[in-house]
Parts: sequence; C-alpha cells; structure tokens
Amino acid sequence: MKLREVGEDRLLIRLLSSLGKNKNVVVAAGDDCAVVRPPRGSELLLLKTDCVVEKIHFTSATNPERVGWKAMMRPLSDFAAMSGLPQFALVTLIVPATRSTRWVSQLYRGLNRAARRFDVVIVGGETSDTRGPAAISVSVAGFVEKNRCVTRSRGKVSDDLFVTGKLGGSIRGKHLNFVPRINESRWLTQNFRVHAMMDLSDGLGADLPRLARASKVGYKIDIDALPLNRGCKIDNALNDGEDFELLFAVSPRDRKRLQKDWRRKFPRIPLTRIGSFNRKSKIENRDLFRGYVHFQQRR
Amino acid sequence: MKLREVGEDRLLIRLLSSLGKNKNVVVAAGDDCAVVRPPRGSELLLLKTDCVVEKIHFTSATNPERVGWKAMMRPLSDFAAMSGLPQFALVTLIVPATRSTRWVSQLYRGLNRAARRFDVVIVGGETSDTRGPAAISVSVAGFVEKNRCVTRSRGKVSDDLFVTGKLGGSIRGKHLNFVPRINESRWLTQNFRVHAMMDLSDGLGADLPRLARASKVGYKIDIDALPLNRGCKIDNALNDGEDFELLFAVSPRDRKRLQKDWRRKFPRIPLTRIGSFNRKSKIENRDLFRGYVHFQQRR
Repeated sequence: MKLREVGEDRLLIRLLSSLGKNKNVVVAAGDDCAVVRPPRGSELLLLKTDCVVEKIHFTSATNPERVGWKAMMRPLSDFAAMSGLPQFALVTLIVPATRSTRWVSQLYRGLNRAARRFDVVIVGGETSDTRGPAAISVSVAGFVEKNRCVTRSRGKVSDDLFVTGKLGGSIRGKHLNFVPRINESRWLTQNFRVHAMMDLSDGLGADLPRLARASKVGYKIDIDALPLNRGCKIDNALNDGEDFELLFAVSPRDRKRLQKDWRRKFPRIPLTRIGSFNRKSKIENRDLFRGYVHFQQRR
Repeated sequence: MKLREVGEDRLLIRLLSSLGKNKNVVVAAGDDCAVVRPPRGSELLLLKTDCVVEKIHFTSATNPERVGWKAMMRPLSDFAAMSGLPQFALVTLIVPATRSTRWVSQLYRGLNRAARRFDVVIVGGETSDTRGPAAISVSVAGFVEKNRCVTRSRGKVSDDLFVTGKLGGSIRGKHLNFVPRINESRWLTQNFRVHAMMDLSDGLGADLPRLARASKVGYKIDIDALPLNRGCKIDNALNDGEDFELLFAVSPRDRKRLQKDWRRKFPRIPLTRIGSFNRKSKIENRDLFRGYVHFQQRR
C-alpha cells in the first residue's frame, strides 16, 4: 500500500502506537507538543538535530530499517560527544506519497530499535509529502550533569589526544549500523577530567582542526599511529568521515591510568593516543587533511 | 554565490553568528549539542518539530524570508496550542548545493525574525545537500507551568467551543506571515480554565474531530457562526487549513466573562463561539468536513 492511500493521521497512529513510554513522558505523540519532565536542577538540557537525506546519506536501495537506525544514531552520537544522556526524540519524516507504507514501517522499526538501545523515547513525529528524495530529521533532547558536560573548547596545550575504535571505510557498512559511544563517554567523564571532546562525523582531517580551533590551540598528530579499519589507508582515516568515534583531550598526567582502566573496562574497543595539542599546529602531510565538507564534496 | 562554493562550516558560522543568545543558553551553535538551562521544577518541558517542504508548503518563487518565517512559526503555533512558552529552536536545512547563499541568508533572516518575535533563540543548525526540493525542519523546546498545560484530551460534554480570528483562505498570504496565538493562549490560561485546546493547521473540518476524539466527546457546531476571512465560504473555513488560529473548549459558565474580558484585552481579534461539545457528534453537512489530510490531498 502507498502512503497516499493511508493518510497522515492513520499512518502516525500506526507508527507511534508501537513506541515505548516511560515515567518522564507526560504527553507523548498525538497532541500538539510532546510534554516531558525536565532534567533536575543540577543538570543541563542538551538539544540536537540532525538529518539523513536519500541519495546523499543513503541510497534508494538501502534497507530502510538501517536508514532509520542511522537517522537516530547520528544525533545520539552528538550526545556521546558532550557526555550527555539522550532521553526524548522527535522525528520529521519527509517522504513521497508514492512510497510504500512498508518502507516507512521498516524505517520506523530502525528508528525505534536505535532509540531503545539507549532508553530514548520517540515522543513526537511529523510527516510531510515531497516531490523529491526522502529525508528524515531527528531531534533529540536529553541532559548532562553540569560538572560532566564536555564541550569542544576547553582543550589545553600539551593535552593528549585520543580516539576510540578504528577509522576509515565507514561507507562499506559501519555508517548504517554503528553504535554511538555513549556508554564509553559516560564512563570517561565519571572517571577522568575530559577537557574537550567531539564525535568524528566528517573525518579526523576535518574534525580535529575544528576541535583545536574551538580550544584555541594547535595540534600535532602521529599519522602512523592512526587506528585503521581493515583495508583502510591513512587517507581513509582522515577523510572518509562517518566514523562516529570519539576524539578527546585529557591531561598527559592521566594517560597511564586511562589506558589501563580503558583496557579493563572496554577490552574490545581500541583506544589510541594519536597526538597532542600544542601551541601551534604542525601537521605532516597537510594535503591529506580534507575531511568531508558538505556542499563541497560529493559522496 | 552558490552554497557548494562556500562549505558547511563557513555557511553555518555566517548564518549562526547573527543569532541572539540569552542567559539560558550555555553553549549555542558550534558545539556538538546545544546546552541550555532546563525549566524549573514546577514546569514541564515541551518539545515540537515541524517542517516545510518546497513545492508542498511553499513554491520555488516564494520569498525565502517568508518561508523562514513560516518554518519557525508553525511549531511555535503548537506551543500556543498547549499554552506553552517556546525558548530554543534547532534548524535543519536541507537544500541543494546549487541554491544561492543569498536565498539561504534570507531564509535565515525570516527564521530569526520569527524567533525573536517570541524571544526564542536559535541554538543549533544542521545543513545537508539534497538532489531534490529544499526542506526546512524546525524543532523547538520550551516549557509550560504544570497547572497551565492544556492538552487536547480534557474537553467535557457541554463545553463551549471557541475559535480565535477568522478562518479560510490562508493560501492567499496568511500562511506565510501569520503570528501564532501565543500571547492570547497565555492570557487564556492565566485567566480561565481551558479544558482542551489545539491550533488549527489542517482546517476546522479535520482538526475539530481530532479534538473531540482526544476528549472522547462529540460536538455540534453552528456552521453559520463560523468567522470567515474576506472572500471565504464555509467550505474554506472548514477545509483550507493553515489558519493557525486557536480552537478551545471552556465551561459555558465562563462564557460571558470570557467574551467580555477578551474584547477588552484583544479588541482587534475576533473570538467566536462556534458550538459545543456533546455526547454524540452531530454535524450539519458532513460532506463539508474534509480538512487537509497529508498524502491524500494535494495543494
């Protein structure tokens, strides 16, 4: 059946009735706004929106459940970057009326499966027809304790720079089924003073300069130390993008303890020291640093 | 200049640098998430997302500043519907790389002008390229005092039904420059017990049945009492949609005082009693009741 034969009310009722609720949700989908309990006094509210667009972030042949997974996990990865806990998601679905309801149901299954993985509740949804490619925009609200909020801007000269996991080659599959590093990030701020952190979405080559710029420092990285996914070269690690790993800065005084405790806590996830912040940037092979810049490069 | 010649970083910096901030914004656009102060303990958090899509909600020739205005005001109208105060907005811009930066700047001017009108701060933005029509998704967070939150579901049998303003013909211009009834809605809940409320986005003919269904009551409306915009007929008032007026239910005991106080407070905005809730729906001219149902009707 096509969307145009169903109508928005019935479609949304069908899609949203399968979603979970919890004690923090006062009024879920179906009213004009979602009504939820705010974080407590010692916590800050985090807000993030992101989108995936057909023919840009996924193809028309991509399994819609994986598209939904990706659409939800992208903004959740930004919560990992701040060491926040995501709680509530709103989904805007822009999709041609000629698309099958099956496609939309599978997409929602992926959105919901990804949300549940981190106890996030989808509390609202909008749909719109379009004459063009499908697009899914997901906004997420959540919180972070005031003393655990990690921005990009507090990195210090001589901080060690670490990345989680391995880099490069995400387009071969990881970009559709990655798990944001929320648990790892929460563990980090519970046990260490993380000065600056971000998630790698556009490639280390584009993202590291952003982190350094926000912290008003330079950086030096050891290109040969970069943790590479199988079949990847340094260029892939720097420029492929969509790694959704964490890049963060901690004092070199914490290096030993961090490396030891991390191995014990997350034995299957590599943690690699790739360089450090300094006063002035020095990059070997500057031309490798392109990253993925929207509107300038095509994938 | 085209978007593809600029790049996302520089575009966002340019667009977002012109936006306001206030004491509730801890970290605005530029980091992974926006960080804001949550509402206080006696307040609930409201979340809403909505979108406008080129060729559906606006044409390629529509003044982009008006498109931005509409994109922001649509979700703000849902805050009016709950008697909430919007505070923070996130903007997702899906736009072809071939679009001019001027178009995007004007769009943002409209978004920002609309936000400022209600002291809303745009705290984050994402952009994505697309091979199709442009789309703008806006999510808004805000709050409402627990005892002033008005849902759709607490209407009672024999409640009076009121609408603000006039209905119909929005497509001739109002849909691009309307002002959500936030002030009116806040005044209502400060002075009256509003049982159920919503904003009219799909036409009274589609929206009133939703309000009644949510309240588990029927309704009777006096078709001839409907307040019509100039040049409009009853059919327009019921089915055109995008009126963005308030529809609400109050006890008939409050009728006299409401009408008198409203006239004094908002002398230029009509308030019309259009009918009442009852046990079982009775509609004259049922076939007039179509409303605008997404995916089923084209505009």
